[in-house]
Amino acid sequence: MIEQLGEIGLIERISKKFLVDKQIVTVGAGEDDCAVIDIAKAKAGYKFLVVTTDTLQESTHFPTGISPFQIGWTSVAVNLSDVAAMGAHPFAFTIAMGIPAHTGTAFVDGVVEGLEKCASAYNTAVVGGDITRSREVILTGTCLGFADNAVRRAGAEVGDLVCVTGSLGNAALGLKLIKEAGIKQKLPKRVEEVAKKALFQPLPRVKEGVNLADSGLVTAMIDISDGLALSLAALAKSSKVGFEIYEDKVPVLSNDIKSATDLDLSMLELRDLAFYYGGDYELLFTVDARTKTLENEEMLKRMQKEMKMSIIGTVVPSEEGIYFKTGEEKEMVELKGYQHF
Amino acid sequence: MIEQLGEIGLIERISKKFLVDKQIVTVGAGEDDCAVIDIAKAKAGYKFLVVTTDTLQESTHFPTGISPFQIGWTSVAVNLSDVAAMGAHPFAFTIAMGIPAHTGTAFVDGVVEGLEKCASAYNTAVVGGDITRSREVILTGTCLGFADNAVRRAGAEVGDLVCVTGSLGNAALGLKLIKEAGIKQKLPKRVEEVAKKALFQPLPRVKEGVNLADSGLVTAMIDISDGLALSLAALAKSSKVGFEIYEDKVPVLSNDIKSATDLDLSMLELRDLAFYYGGDYELLFTVDARTKTLENEEMLKRMQKEMKMSIIGTVVPSEEGIYFKTGEEKEMVELKGYQHF
Repeated sequence: MIEQLGEIGLIERISKKFLVDKQIVTVGAGEDDCAVIDIAKAKAGYKFLVVTTDTLQESTHFPTGISPFQIGWTSVAVNLSDVAAMGAHPFAFTIAMGIPAHTGTAFVDGVVEGLEKCASAYNTAVVGGDITRSREVILTGTCLGFADNAVRRAGAEVGDLVCVTGSLGNAALGLKLIKEAGIKQKLPKRVEEVAKKALFQPLPRVKEGVNLADSGLVTAMIDISDGLALSLAALAKSSKVGFEIYEDKVPVLSNDIKSATDLDLSMLELRDLAFYYGGDYELLFTVDARTKTLENEEMLKRMQKEMKMSIIGTVVPSEEGIYFKTGEEKEMVELKGYQHF
Repeated sequence: MIEQLGEIGLIERISKKFLVDKQIVTVGAGEDDCAVIDIAKAKAGYKFLVVTTDTLQESTHFPTGISPFQIGWTSVAVNLSDVAAMGAHPFAFTIAMGIPAHTGTAFVDGVVEGLEKCASAYNTAVVGGDITRSREVILTGTCLGFADNAVRRAGAEVGDLVCVTGSLGNAALGLKLIKEAGIKQKLPKRVEEVAKKALFQPLPRVKEGVNLADSGLVTAMIDISDGLALSLAALAKSSKVGFEIYEDKVPVLSNDIKSATDLDLSMLELRDLAFYYGGDYELLFTVDARTKTLENEEMLKRMQKEMKMSIIGTVVPSEEGIYFKTGEEKEMVELKGYQHF
């Protein structure tokens, strides 16, 4: 148990797992009162520093079956996803861990390995943290990044295209499989594996976010953490616009999942999975389709080639709200999804 | 209750309390996926970015009687103290709040006011945060700062003077007064007020930290969060030195407290208060007394004039350990203080 290591022993054990480039991070985790980063070397000329903080805790965020490694991974991933949504390059991460006294060292080691693996997979240094005794496991990550053009939630204009990266609903399916045994029996094992991986170990769209920002075509962006409906609502509010969404164009479930089953997917209530759950950490963004130059059209084609992205709708005036369009039918999108309170 | 506000309502309510300089913080709390800071304008040419994170939680850190305002204040102050210990200028702060669902809005408003007041008292912008539902109140702050010469824990050399800012044991006395009713009855009300203020609302030594770093004389520095004994031990370990401490030179209790009572202070077990509790958030640092130039001597005098500081010992070789010296007597300092595990 970690109690036997003592706080100082525990910090030493954890800190040495986080290797950093000493040229840039001159003082790293566990070394001093603060981490110290050489700005000139780290930022390489970027204009803006971005910072975000996000908490995961046992009683709210850990689905049944998640491993310690995946808990650590996710606590980095959710923060990276926010940095990605600004089109920024993440570079440093701190982690504050609250851990019950009777926790085993294997659990902590697993979490730390997950933290380290996710951070290094995205070129981000874990530079520091804090460890306290708490009633439940609680992990607060803070991520720093650099950007030249931070893409805001505000900026979408009427006529812009509405797009998403990747596919939606995979994590939601994972959650459904945990909660509803009936569904699980009807699907191949392979689908369960892929859906649970999406739920337990999300892959933030960092490279995509940077590429989208660099394209110069993206007018607004947000990550889809609490479901597409709430993310559309947040973007609509910031940009003061509405959205027309073509429901059949929304990419629900990954090809991996779709190709692994020949069952009728509609029993999964696809709209619910894609709109009202979240957890996939894809990016929702708007693209300028008003300025119709040849260059812009080619850039859009290049973006579509470089990453998996789908055009799912158009930006409409604020008064029209957020609705599905199928043929001539309009149906308002319900504003529900994950909320803490 | 905050449940009735909903997460989005709660974030809006809180975010608008944090006013920032829009020239520097181009995107502030509650506005987007990340806060965005204009580096060139914020850093004004500093070489290093420092970052620290620290958590306070109900079950461990909130002494009986602390107000919501003071909880908020302290969660900023403990992070500012770490920035101060590097001799850095704090400039931005994020707060992740875990709050039980049935918490009243007055509690949250109080915490937010405390956060805001402490941050702005030290020219630090609250730029973002996160709010989740948790089993107990838990606040993780992350503070960013800039420095040209970040003062490390490593750097003390044999022959350096050992110094502290302010006075020690005030917060520890506050805690003692809460826990031991017998002591409380023997002390004037005024002492109780001052001691509890030190415990509930610490004043981090930000200006002092910057001045000490700028002096060029300070070879190592740390803040005294978990008691002087543990801070000495951490400094000794990083610098690979030992310390000879003149116990009678250690400034125990503020003049405010000492002048308010004509009782025998020794009943308070002064050594314990100063060495083994902490919570005062003073700075412990070492000063180069080896390079005996006239300039250095004048700088030391100026430092002593500009801030309340006491010389409490000398740096000795590592093999000698950490000990009290009284006349010819040597007594080893016990390595105890506040540890989470």
